[in-house]
Amino acid sequence: MAVVTILGAGYMGAALSFPALENDHEVRLWGTWLDDPLIDAVRIGHEHPRLEMAMLPALQTYKHKELAQALDGADLLICAVTSEGIARVMQSVLMLIDHEIPFMSATKGLLPGPNGHMDRLSRTVEALALTSLHYGQIGGPSKAVELCRRIPTAVVYAGAHAAFAADIMHAPYYHITLSEDLPGVEVCAALKNAFAIGSGLFDGLEKAGAVTESYNAKSAFFSKAVHEIARVVEAMGGQPETAFGLAGAGDLIVTAVAGRNRTFGEMVGAGTPPDEVAAYMAARNLLTEGYPAVRTGWALVSHLAGEGRLDLEDFAFLRALYAIVYEGAPVKETLFAIDLRERRLKGADGRVPRWAEIGDREASHHDHSLG
Amino acid sequence: MAVVTILGAGYMGAALSFPALENDHEVRLWGTWLDDPLIDAVRIGHEHPRLEMAMLPALQTYKHKELAQALDGADLLICAVTSEGIARVMQSVLMLIDHEIPFMSATKGLLPGPNGHMDRLSRTVEALALTSLHYGQIGGPSKAVELCRRIPTAVVYAGAHAAFAADIMHAPYYHITLSEDLPGVEVCAALKNAFAIGSGLFDGLEKAGAVTESYNAKSAFFSKAVHEIARVVEAMGGQPETAFGLAGAGDLIVTAVAGRNRTFGEMVGAGTPPDEVAAYMAARNLLTEGYPAVRTGWALVSHLAGEGRLDLEDFAFLRALYAIVYEGAPVKETLFAIDLRERRLKGADGRVPRWAEIGDREASHHDHSLG
Repeated sequence: MAVVTILGAGYMGAALSFPALENDHEVRLWGTWLDDPLIDAVRIGHEHPRLEMAMLPALQTYKHKELAQALDGADLLICAVTSEGIARVMQSVLMLIDHEIPFMSATKGLLPGPNGHMDRLSRTVEALALTSLHYGQIGGPSKAVELCRRIPTAVVYAGAHAAFAADIMHAPYYHITLSEDLPGVEVCAALKNAFAIGSGLFDGLEKAGAVTESYNAKSAFFSKAVHEIARVVEAMGGQPETAFGLAGAGDLIVTAVAGRNRTFGEMVGAGTPPDEVAAYMAARNLLTEGYPAVRTGWALVSHLAGEGRLDLEDFAFLRALYAIVYEGAPVKETLFAIDLRERRLKGADGRVPRWAEIGDREASHHDHSLG
Repeated sequence: MAVVTILGAGYMGAALSFPALENDHEVRLWGTWLDDPLIDAVRIGHEHPRLEMAMLPALQTYKHKELAQALDGADLLICAVTSEGIARVMQSVLMLIDHEIPFMSATKGLLPGPNGHMDRLSRTVEALALTSLHYGQIGGPSKAVELCRRIPTAVVYAGAHAAFAADIMHAPYYHITLSEDLPGVEVCAALKNAFAIGSGLFDGLEKAGAVTESYNAKSAFFSKAVHEIARVVEAMGGQPETAFGLAGAGDLIVTAVAGRNRTFGEMVGAGTPPDEVAAYMAARNLLTEGYPAVRTGWALVSHLAGEGRLDLEDFAFLRALYAIVYEGAPVKETLFAIDLRERRLKGADGRVPRWAEIGDREASHHDHSLG
């Protein structure tokens, strides 16, 4: 039996207690300074206020001031706080534990790294530790409420302690693939929220009557999103294949069809200015990670392009999302202008892509109505 | 200006006339013996009865007996008949034309090939020609009605004459990627219909109350479907990367979220026996290509496994679909029993997968309720 401490008592932190408890481990759910009301509710036997589900009776709960007790003797640390909160939480945590403790993060996002540029969360957290902390990342399509309900869920664990963590967490309904590609899984987890907004934009255009059905476009943009993610993964030292599997394409689907990022995109696509949508959702405590993810994702890509590690021409979709969400660009015209032809990634052996390509003849071609 | 003859006047045949006509080519739409009512309607200026859209005035129409006239002087042949009809149509066509004519097929499926085993359509058609016919395949996410409405659509053209055809067909809303992987595009086009049923099965389980939401599972199974398709592509001499792009994952999405194969799966998932669903839909002229595709796909995979070209263990999803659709296996229990961990394909350089994997410990692990 292991002692598992989960940092962050929101949706995912609470949900991850299920497989660990059912494997007979001791599970401690610690809430941040924002989570005390959640912990209070669970302590008196109520449903978890966000998940609207009862927690398992064996779950131990710790309030924000009880961090030291929650960490005492822990064998595995799982981080499920927000990307905005991770640095502050980990500063406290790292003063209280052995930095060699197996550490897995379900937190997703990008933060300015040690060099001041947008970077993977692991770089920030490992820099905080100064010593030997090894960050691990949990990726893949995993809505918290479905995990609690034992809907078959397939995730990816990457990092030095991934196998140890998977041994504690795996369950018949919680399928864990081990990946050696930590950068890839982190980048996928961070960027999928940004691209999920794109799918919502088409839903919004449909709602507003600007297009009828647009399944063709949604599928084409989904495919383009995965390719753009793959190119960032590659530029960040990861394996582009990761973007085409559960951690990338798989997670993008669940986010694009069901979630707050899709809703955000839908409201923007239907005509509400993005900053108003963000304010509206924030006021209702509906955090949309995609809104900052578009900004941080574009900052990362711009930085990498400046260093010659990728080509901005390959990022027409992310560029369009940034223009729509932060620069007031019109949704339909901006999306409809994007070249959706697929450009295959170079293989790991550096061979040239095997696709022939049509030259850029559109410009000289007679104008077609986009009606 | 080129002369484009489209074989088959159903949804896709009629839709493909739009970009060709808008590029000022002469476009001839020929209907099979089943399509004469469609041609009649279009000729008197009515909407196309299936698409429920008006065709462009410049479209020329040919009834089933007018095949010779439709083919006379054609520069490009586009085949959009059903996979059941393609052999019969092409036998007639090949008696009337120069076999070197550029030929592209939007028809998708598998047929017994020259060796008697399930094979790609191109193998059947090229064997019929005896001489130099070069088959080309159109793949990618493309619902016909959206193409007519100029919704951005991204497709893949593969085959010897793909570039010639793309030059005639491309439009600002019809983005054509050229692929050199004909086997890959064909296999993807044939198998996506089978796997689209799988997504529908979960919709049916939800409808019947057997599960609540199941986005996690749908995403995980989507990812598994793409990997299974990639393995067939590889075994058939194609490039597995094709399965991860527009022709595979992209086309699978549009089919899985919107289409008759999804509907078929939904009815089965909700509890109606598969043969009854097939009969119900056939009676309403709602052809579901996924129903035979599960059978032909499983036959192909079984044949390839028998030849040692792939490992049946990698095909748990397709096997489950076959068991559910043709052997009466229970939907939920069969799907929930599948191992959803990702097994990475070997690279083109034959290197071993870089994923570590958890050993098979489930069997010895204590039993968890699948609740």
